[in-house]
Amino acid sequence: MALKLYGIAMSTCTTRAMTCLYEKEVEFELVPVDLYTAEHKQPPFLAKNPFGQVPVLEDDDLTLFESRAITRYVSQKYKETGVDLLRQENIKEAALVNLWIEVESQQYDPAISPIVYQIFVSPIQGQTPDQTVIEANAEKLGKVLDVYEARLSTTKYLAGDFYSLADLHHLPYTYYMMKTEWASLINSRPHVKAWWEDISSRAAFVKVAEGMTLN
Amino acid sequence: MALKLYGIAMSTCTTRAMTCLYEKEVEFELVPVDLYTAEHKQPPFLAKNPFGQVPVLEDDDLTLFESRAITRYVSQKYKETGVDLLRQENIKEAALVNLWIEVESQQYDPAISPIVYQIFVSPIQGQTPDQTVIEANAEKLGKVLDVYEARLSTTKYLAGDFYSLADLHHLPYTYYMMKTEWASLINSRPHVKAWWEDISSRAAFVKVAEGMTLN
Repeated sequence: MALKLYGIAMSTCTTRAMTCLYEKEVEFELVPVDLYTAEHKQPPFLAKNPFGQVPVLEDDDLTLFESRAITRYVSQKYKETGVDLLRQENIKEAALVNLWIEVESQQYDPAISPIVYQIFVSPIQGQTPDQTVIEANAEKLGKVLDVYEARLSTTKYLAGDFYSLADLHHLPYTYYMMKTEWASLINSRPHVKAWWEDISSRAAFVKVAEGMTLN
Repeated sequence: MALKLYGIAMSTCTTRAMTCLYEKEVEFELVPVDLYTAEHKQPPFLAKNPFGQVPVLEDDDLTLFESRAITRYVSQKYKETGVDLLRQENIKEAALVNLWIEVESQQYDPAISPIVYQIFVSPIQGQTPDQTVIEANAEKLGKVLDVYEARLSTTKYLAGDFYSLADLHHLPYTYYMMKTEWASLINSRPHVKAWWEDISSRAAFVKVAEGMTLN
């Protein structure tokens, strides 16, 4: 039975999982969840993910949520197909992949996600984007990207000279931010810009980005 | 050469790594970093971790930071000793460990860490704890713990009937919170309370907790 991914093609976390599934050449069915009618807060969906968030992955009797846990599972289960995203054969490479996965999760995401939320999601909810929140987080993100600029001047990708799950996890939020004036945070740093142009032009993500219409 | 862990015994993230090292029965040297003189913001330390945070792990020529990347590395490298914290021999168990590791990182930590920060760290910096921040996050944490209560009524630990890295990652912040009035968030939920009493009484953590004197 093909994997089922419950989510919506414009959601950042759903597209994180979808990009990984395409990179690993894994067949899956995208089962739409209607966020506008709050389907994700109703009992049938809460039985799959008690936190009421997309995406959810079903693989036979295994139900997973949290996009970064889903990408890790897909990368481990389908290690023979597609790109090797975790480098588990080499303990040092794997350690660096896991290090930069944590940097995305703990340093990059907490700064970029409020920017994207304020600019793209607040208006849908009838609110005005909060410029103070946006500017404070843009400053935080700039400091994180200074570290990335130094790192990417020594290696082509974050964990080394190979594309990995650590790079992939950055795609969805950065893609939306690149449609705003804050694209300058990426474009003003030459190594970060080259890295972004590289990872965002991979076929797996180009396919996913077609559905990313949150604007 | 023994591993070197740069950090400080009262830091939550340093103790996350230390607890894992003890569970895996790995020898290491704790190299103190003087946070009060901002040693972690000076060039020699920034060369190890450009984000200027403890802990950092050195294993020969490999330098790692981000506590959750360090624990994963230690758990993978020393899989033959101590407790099996990642369950990699069983892909479904491993998937559930990784799922609950992400829940700690994305749901639990963002709610509990501001509470601990306000109560224990703000006063050191000469500030008054912000009750609005504490109460808003206590409410968020309560909702997360409702999910934990339901989960822990079906399995003994978060990922299943086995202790794992997912449980371990919760120890440091929860330990400090349990010294405050917000301990009621744990104590009022019987399955969460039983889980906390179990995981916090493990020998590896009892040893670490002796140094956790941030109060």
